[in-house]
Amino acid sequence: MKDPGWLTPQEQRAWRAHLAAHRLLSHQLDRELQVFGLSLNDYEILVNLSESPEHRMRMSELADATVQSRSRLSHQISRMEADGLVAREDCEDDRRGTFAVLTDLGWETMQRVAPEHVASVREHFVDLLTPEQVATIEEVYTGVVEHLHTLRSAK
Amino acid sequence: MKDPGWLTPQEQRAWRAHLAAHRLLSHQLDRELQVFGLSLNDYEILVNLSESPEHRMRMSELADATVQSRSRLSHQISRMEADGLVAREDCEDDRRGTFAVLTDLGWETMQRVAPEHVASVREHFVDLLTPEQVATIEEVYTGVVEHLHTLRSAK
Repeated sequence: MKDPGWLTPQEQRAWRAHLAAHRLLSHQLDRELQVFGLSLNDYEILVNLSESPEHRMRMSELADATVQSRSRLSHQISRMEADGLVAREDCEDDRRGTFAVLTDLGWETMQRVAPEHVASVREHFVDLLTPEQVATIEEVYTGVVEHLHTLRSAK
Repeated sequence: MKDPGWLTPQEQRAWRAHLAAHRLLSHQLDRELQVFGLSLNDYEILVNLSESPEHRMRMSELADATVQSRSRLSHQISRMEADGLVAREDCEDDRRGTFAVLTDLGWETMQRVAPEHVASVREHFVDLLTPEQVATIEEVYTGVVEHLHTLRSAK
């Protein structure tokens, strides 16, 4: 057995606090989005599409951007299509697959929900932090994202 | 419409980095636990039980500790029961429901997997941070957890 290099008590507290906070926070934000008939995953799709040129993204890009498998994304887009929030469009001039496009209803929903969701993110996360803590969170998690992206692309 | 109080660019980068890092990290840790036939959720159940007196917890306590609904936990415990990792036991001297208990196989699995999992948590998270950053993460997320627990218990 290799040396496990057990976490120090503080490292363990930090790691467990990260896990618990993320779970409670996702749960709370999900609850507050439910009022609008959305999940946190739905909201993230709407954000990604609304920030893209012509409100459209290739399914493969959207899967990468939201860190999920193509098949899981496909199920989610089907649900959102049934709700009228997005539409699928085949790509005419290349064969690299399908686009997801924000519908008018999806865009209106996004504009209506975004201020409420941002207020939730402030109340339950951002406004609890000092500016220095915000800077540390950005630095730490950007580093983690880069590390994990490097790992994935190395495969 | 109320003033949305949009996030500053840095607040937005911090929040998005938190979300992306958590998703990539969960995905990576899940992948590395799959070698042992476990998910990150399974592992968390094993940790909670292995740290409890007599390796047992009331289902309601386990649901609270892992921040999930009773029904979702019940499905998960059924799967883990089928794998021989945990057992359900009825409480003899009170009627407050069922216990989940670690089996011998569950305990052996925990001892075998824990060093590997801790090494993963080090590689992909803890060892990327300075001691000061670890302290900030603990402080920030403990505050978020307390805020959200207060909110839930106030209902």
